[in-house]
Formats: sequence, structure tokens, C-alpha cells
Amino acid sequence: MATPSRSDIPALYEAARSGHRPSLARLLSQIERGAEGARATGALAFPDAGGGYTLGITGAPGAGKSTLTSALVARMRSDELSIGVLAIDPSSPFTGGAILGDRVRMQEHALDELVFIRSMATRGHLGGLALATPEAVRLLEATGRQWIVVETVGVGQVEVEIAGAADTTVVVVNPGWGDAVQANKAGLMEIADVFVINKSDRAGADDTRRDLEYMLDLSGHTGQEGGWRPEVVSTVAIDGQGMDELWEAVQKHRTHLESSSELAERRERRANDELAKIVTEQLEDQARRLQASEEFQRLRDDIDHRVIDPWEAASRLLGSRPAD
Amino acid sequence: MATPSRSDIPALYEAARSGHRPSLARLLSQIERGAEGARATGALAFPDAGGGYTLGITGAPGAGKSTLTSALVARMRSDELSIGVLAIDPSSPFTGGAILGDRVRMQEHALDELVFIRSMATRGHLGGLALATPEAVRLLEATGRQWIVVETVGVGQVEVEIAGAADTTVVVVNPGWGDAVQANKAGLMEIADVFVINKSDRAGADDTRRDLEYMLDLSGHTGQEGGWRPEVVSTVAIDGQGMDELWEAVQKHRTHLESSSELAERRERRANDELAKIVTEQLEDQARRLQASEEFQRLRDDIDHRVIDPWEAASRLLGSRPAD
Repeated sequence: MATPSRSDIPALYEAARSGHRPSLARLLSQIERGAEGARATGALAFPDAGGGYTLGITGAPGAGKSTLTSALVARMRSDELSIGVLAIDPSSPFTGGAILGDRVRMQEHALDELVFIRSMATRGHLGGLALATPEAVRLLEATGRQWIVVETVGVGQVEVEIAGAADTTVVVVNPGWGDAVQANKAGLMEIADVFVINKSDRAGADDTRRDLEYMLDLSGHTGQEGGWRPEVVSTVAIDGQGMDELWEAVQKHRTHLESSSELAERRERRANDELAKIVTEQLEDQARRLQASEEFQRLRDDIDHRVIDPWEAASRLLGSRPAD
Repeated sequence: MATPSRSDIPALYEAARSGHRPSLARLLSQIERGAEGARATGALAFPDAGGGYTLGITGAPGAGKSTLTSALVARMRSDELSIGVLAIDPSSPFTGGAILGDRVRMQEHALDELVFIRSMATRGHLGGLALATPEAVRLLEATGRQWIVVETVGVGQVEVEIAGAADTTVVVVNPGWGDAVQANKAGLMEIADVFVINKSDRAGADDTRRDLEYMLDLSGHTGQEGGWRPEVVSTVAIDGQGMDELWEAVQKHRTHLESSSELAERRERRANDELAKIVTEQLEDQARRLQASEEFQRLRDDIDHRVIDPWEAASRLLGSRPAD
């Protein structure tokens, strides 16, 4: 099948829906770019989306997230699930070593019809990844993926937010003094539904488990009264060890969410957050455009000549805003 | 003279212009409150403002800013200058010990016709003090103050910004290991035109002076080619020591600014920043109102039913915004 042209979004979407992977890749590039093509793609995918389940995987750099993702996807794949993987990298795709690493490690799935893998990077537009990721997730859902795995580095507010915006979030730590404490500091404790102690064949794995359980105790995660207490799973991802246990813990959490009102509540919160974020981003964008406008300079002159005061100038500037 | 009613802004302004201090106090309360009364006051004062010179005084808590301000104002007062003092407190006026301290220390000027002293606190609205302070400064200018002294605690971005938005900024440090380094960290180094080592009768004053000079060297303040190298003045404010030197340094800096293009440039930058800040604040306010609106909830329902996607919902929400 010939890939439709970059600009023919409806044709690309039709092709992607019927399983044409290069078309799907082009649509994801549109979403990454964040301009008109992203809006058009999102509008087409939205009515068809919502049928997938998202799994976030995050942790500090070097924790082995990519290896773990790859091993877990292999385990999921053996259940004949259709899977989309988004590896979110906050740096440019052309400089990041992580991306190359992902690709190498994940290439075992690369030719697998049931697994679609994609690295996404910001193109520098503000709020870019936080807004692009849910769009990409919906596109993967709309084109038939049952599970969407979103891997991000757990550093920085945006990345933690992205990882925490999944249905189930897995936080990866390593054995070693203080790793659990670091996870707590970075806000990862709050978003974790499942903890993975990866590289658990190293010294200190038991201490790390004890630290995690202790911090869960402190934060009131009793697991009683129908609440969920994050499970702690030990893995050695590079050897595929612990993948059955991890996959079981993820499915158990999914069952917990689905059998309570929690899944619906989580998704509602997420939808609220997304709409609020889009509104804020649009208004911030407007503020930037206004400040760069000729009208801004004209009004500044009027202020200098004391013809109008700054508040009046702001009113006029905001009154002159384009209707977009 | 009877004080005009709180709501009669034009009458209050007329009275304040003719020297009626309770009317001036009421107008400053309006500015502090930040609502319609503030806009009306600002609009009246703006055409009459611009004739004063602003002096910012900032430093860490406990550095002796209030005592120093009081002593410096006493020195300025002996030159028969008309002075307004704004003591900016980021906390509530009802909880802050600092305010009470200010009042006690400054009461020596309280009955002085040429000095008007006012504590200003945020009322909790965002961007409050950063936007209220320039309004208050203009009101004090418009009602005849030649010098406006703005004292803020040099902690937090907003406070440092306010202090740095003066024509001349004095940064107060104390003798003691690392105080100069702390000032550097807090961003005070960048905004200082004059450094004061207050409590300079204590041990370590020479070290602090050396640290400051060293950091000025590092930051490229050579004082050559017509540039200004911040002066370092030693004071013991509680005894009034060093006030002649400090006042001289401030006046020297003013002369430097006025004899170059720097004063005009500074004020232009400030006017740009203020207008940009008002625009941003108005748009943020709009975002908050939109997110609390019924329309937001209606559109969220439409998203849940997959009738419209979030971007379309945001467009409609922004299209429905009131013209304010």
C-alpha cells in the first residue's frame, strides 16, 4: 500500500485504521509537530478512541525503564494483545542517546504486527508533550491498540505528570541506599500503582523493598476498605525475570480500578486536567502573541506619553485580540 | 477636613492631592484591594505621576531593613524632601510581626507632614503586590512625593522583582560568613545598585565587604566605560551610623542614571514588564473563570460523550469568553 501524502490527514487516518503502519507513523509526527495537522488528526481519532487501557512506566534515568518496557511488552505480547508503545523523551530526538537505546532494545518487537513503537520528543512548543501525549494515546486507541504503554523519564514535573496520567502507573527504582527516598522526593510515590525494584539481583534490594513498604505505611496506604496499596515487584528486566509477576500486578490493579468507580474517576480527572491545560496554553500563547504585537508597542508609546494608564492599555490590547 | 467616603474616588483623590493624608490612606487601601476602586484610582493618578524617584530597599529577614529605612528617611528628611514609604509585606497585615515592627520603628516619622508611611500586604489575589506596588508608587508621586522608598523582604521571586523595579535598589546584608553568597543565590546581586553592610560593628564586616567586592569583580562590574559598579556602604542603622554615606551613594547612583540613558531605559523596561504582567494576569484570571464556568462542565460532558474533542471544546470555551 502506498502511504498517503503527509497533508492528506483523512486518507492517512483511514489507512492507519486499516492497519497501515507508515500512515500511523505520519499521523504521530503530525501530533508531535502540534500545529493544524495535530488538531485535524485529534478530531478524527477522538470519536473512535477510548477503548484502550494506558500503562505508564517511569523512574529515574538509568533505572532500566526501556529494558523493562521491552521485557514487559514481550510478556504482554504472548497474550496476543495489540500494543502501542510511546517512549517520551523530553530532549530532541536528534541528540538523545536514550532514544537510540530504546530503539535498539525494542527492536525485537519492531517487526511484530501487534506492537507499534514510537519515540516522541518535544518540538520546543510549550506544554508540548503534556498535550501531545494524550492525543497520541487516543490515536493508538482509535487505530486498534488495546494497551498503550507510555514510558517517560521520571524527572521534572511535566514527565511525572505524563506518567501519572495513565490508568495504571508503574514506578521503577533500583536497589541502593536512598533510591526509594529519591522516588518519594520526585513525587513518584504519589503516582505509583505498582513499584518495580529492577536490577533486584544487586545488593540492597531487600532494604529498598523495606523502605518502599515503610513509606507506603507512612502515606496511609493500608490497602483496606477497598483501597489499593501499591504492589512491589522485584525484577531483573535484562533477563526477563519477574515479568509474570509484574504483568499480574498490573492486571490486578486494572481489575481493582474497573470493579470500583476509580477508573471512571481517574479518567474524568484526566479529561478535566486536559481541557484546563489546553485552555491555559491557548491563553498563554495569546499573551505571548499580544506582547510581540505592534499594538503592544503603540500602547506602550501612549503609556509613555501618559495618554492612557497600563490597565487601560491592557484592556484595549485584550479587546483587540483576534477571535481565533 | 472631613474624609470623603470610601467610594468617592475622585473626591478622595482631590483631597489627597491637596495634602489630606487620611484620603491618601483610603486610596492606598483601594489599590491594595485590587478591584474596581484600584482601577479608578490608578486612572486618576496616572497622568499626574512620573515626577518622583523610587528607591528600593531589600535584604534577607532580620538584616535590619526597617531600621535602616527609618534612619535613611530621617537623613533624607533633613534635606526637606517629601517622602513616601511603602513597606511591602507578603503576609497578611494581621499576622505579620514585621508590620508592627515597622510601625514602631517608623513612628518617629509618623507625625511628620513630609513623610507618609504605609504598609502594604497582599490580599491573596495572584500577582497582587507586583501589580499593586507600581500603582501605589504612582499615587504617591501624583500626590506630591519626591522620593518613594519601597522596602521589601528579599525572599521569593515576587519580592525581589518588586525591589528591583526601583530606580535605585539598595540591598542590605549583614556581616557573617556566607551572607554575601546568600544574597547572590537569592538573585539580589543582580538588582543591587548599592550594597549596605548593616550591623557593621559586628565581627566579619571586612570579610563580607571583601566577598561582595569579589563577587562584583566576578560578575564583570568594573565600573569602567561609563558603567556603574555598585557601591558598598557600611552602616549601623540602629545608631544612625553611615547614613550620610548611604544617602550620598544613592544620590550618586541617581546622578549616574540621569546623566546617561540608563534611567530612561530602566523605566521603559519596567513599563514593558508591567503591561506584559497585567495582560498575563488578566488572561490567567480569564482561564480560572472559564474553568469554573458552567460552560466548562457542559463541554466536559460533550467530551465524555465523544461529541467534541478537547481542542474543539477549548475553542468554543475561548469563543464564549466575555468581552470584559
